Amino acid sequence: MAALSTPAELAPVLEAGGVELSRLMHRTESRLAEVAEGHGANLAGHAAGTLAAGGKRLRPLLVFLCAAQGPPTLPAAVAVELLHMATLVHDDVLDRAELRRGRPTVFSEGGREAATATGDLLFSRAFAELTATGSADAVRVLSMASEGLVRGELMQRADAWSADVTPERYLERCRLKTATLFEAACRMGALLGGEPAAAEALGRFGERIGLAFQLLDDVLDVSGPPERTGKPRGADLVDGTVTLPLIIARTRDPELAELDLRQAAIGPARAAAVCDHIATSGALGEVRAEAFHQVAEAKAALTGLELPDSRRRALNLVADGVVERHA
Amino acid sequence: MAALSTPAELAPVLEAGGVELSRLMHRTESRLAEVAEGHGANLAGHAAGTLAAGGKRLRPLLVFLCAAQGPPTLPAAVAVELLHMATLVHDDVLDRAELRRGRPTVFSEGGREAATATGDLLFSRAFAELTATGSADAVRVLSMASEGLVRGELMQRADAWSADVTPERYLERCRLKTATLFEAACRMGALLGGEPAAAEALGRFGERIGLAFQLLDDVLDVSGPPERTGKPRGADLVDGTVTLPLIIARTRDPELAELDLRQAAIGPARAAAVCDHIATSGALGEVRAEAFHQVAEAKAALTGLELPDSRRRALNLVADGVVERHA
Repeated sequence: MAALSTPAELAPVLEAGGVELSRLMHRTESRLAEVAEGHGANLAGHAAGTLAAGGKRLRPLLVFLCAAQGPPTLPAAVAVELLHMATLVHDDVLDRAELRRGRPTVFSEGGREAATATGDLLFSRAFAELTATGSADAVRVLSMASEGLVRGELMQRADAWSADVTPERYLERCRLKTATLFEAACRMGALLGGEPAAAEALGRFGERIGLAFQLLDDVLDVSGPPERTGKPRGADLVDGTVTLPLIIARTRDPELAELDLRQAAIGPARAAAVCDHIATSGALGEVRAEAFHQVAEAKAALTGLELPDSRRRALNLVADGVVERHA
Repeated sequence: MAALSTPAELAPVLEAGGVELSRLMHRTESRLAEVAEGHGANLAGHAAGTLAAGGKRLRPLLVFLCAAQGPPTLPAAVAVELLHMATLVHDDVLDRAELRRGRPTVFSEGGREAATATGDLLFSRAFAELTATGSADAVRVLSMASEGLVRGELMQRADAWSADVTPERYLERCRLKTATLFEAACRMGALLGGEPAAAEALGRFGERIGLAFQLLDDVLDVSGPPERTGKPRGADLVDGTVTLPLIIARTRDPELAELDLRQAAIGPARAAAVCDHIATSGALGEVRAEAFHQVAEAKAALTGLELPDSRRRALNLVADGVVERHA
């Protein structure tokens, strides 16, 4: 049976979900491995490496937790993770990233061509997988989310090194680039798993925890520590990605306010020092507070729903888990 | 009404298809324009430019010609063209291509980021469009074709500058990178347009004319002339793409047999001279013969089918059109 890569902070969720949830997560892992291996020598290595590199599998988990019956949602759980990976592989090409989750990226191992193709393949595979559900609604939900991801990614690049990113614009970017896929996972779970009437509320739940997830990612980029996050502090600063911690810190710290955000100005060496400044400004607490606020809104979206206690508990645990983590 | 960009050699096909076919092609063009415009300022420009740059719209045409009833196949016609464009946009990123069809590429206008994102967006849009058909079979056919395109593209890059490409391997690459999408267009037309029993035979028809199409493309790359094809002769040689004209010519011309295929060896300046050598060897006639053979097989695939005369005539005209062209 394929090993699960779910991190420790989500263990209570698996516990709350019981044997059935663990079984579904194992089946997802096996199917992801099958999909990766079914592509001939050229691609199999890259796709398999990407999938084996793990990740939290948070999106498949959400698909299952939003479904009354898990098994019909299995292809959606696999599809949402494949789409997530497709975008990571393409992002790594654009960022010329050498490492992801401590492993060489497809880009660094195979070059631009192989990585672009592997991403395209994972995209196609995501939609192929989803057709097993026979649901045009699910395909529509996933393709809309996919558009959101692309638009979010473009927005991030358009706003690189910009001193004019407002908190509102930052949040809209997070919604597009992260929250849409969390929302899609929840919606597909509800639609395919026998809870169509709850799709709207569960979609809102997903969107909110997606926002919280991204907010916390951006906090961790500043606070580290690298031993736990697996990447150097201030990677966003080096890439020119202007996040809420920096936006808030600049309103409080005159030195940061005068900081030239252009790439030349912040190399990896200076990034850690700027991170210290941001942390000292108190901005991180404010961003964490915003993340907790989003989690509270996510939980509130569930209140009107009739859900079995174990699923409600598991969903609440996921919501807490996205902000109470260190990597 | 949106203008059609169907080239002159396909005019008889539109004539054979009558008012209904022209109407469907116009609706496809309008819908493509709508899809391109619906993406916010960031993307709309790039996507619209790509779509407006035209192309033969051969794949949508095939969708309609393989259908007994055209209107239900409209989303498939739009989707197959969107997918085709997505792959072109990504190919241009990988090739760092400045021009396509005489216009600046998304890559040259917007850079790698915008072009990768625009391609991803067109991919997503293709599948979103197809869900309007409500047919999981159609989504499956398109996603399988999409995989074929990716694998063909990778195979082409893996075989770049290789002196060991056999005719069989070349044909397999053409099948993957070109014929699968022609086949998918025909299959989707049959499945959605009320001809499911004919899907197999029409799919084979599509595959064969796809092969013929690629064979002729590879002849035109050698023979030009550039005033008609819109690109310099020998672009494949410069890119390192080893095609059948070169493979055959190397078995006949000792000078070509000794040619070093590595990139450094054939710059744009030398490419035209090598093209002359290939043409003199008689290889082009042989490749044309192979293309005509594929067209004959395509037509043979139709013989067992009961088709109205006008559609059979139109399909045969498309088959002839893919080899009797100069651009």
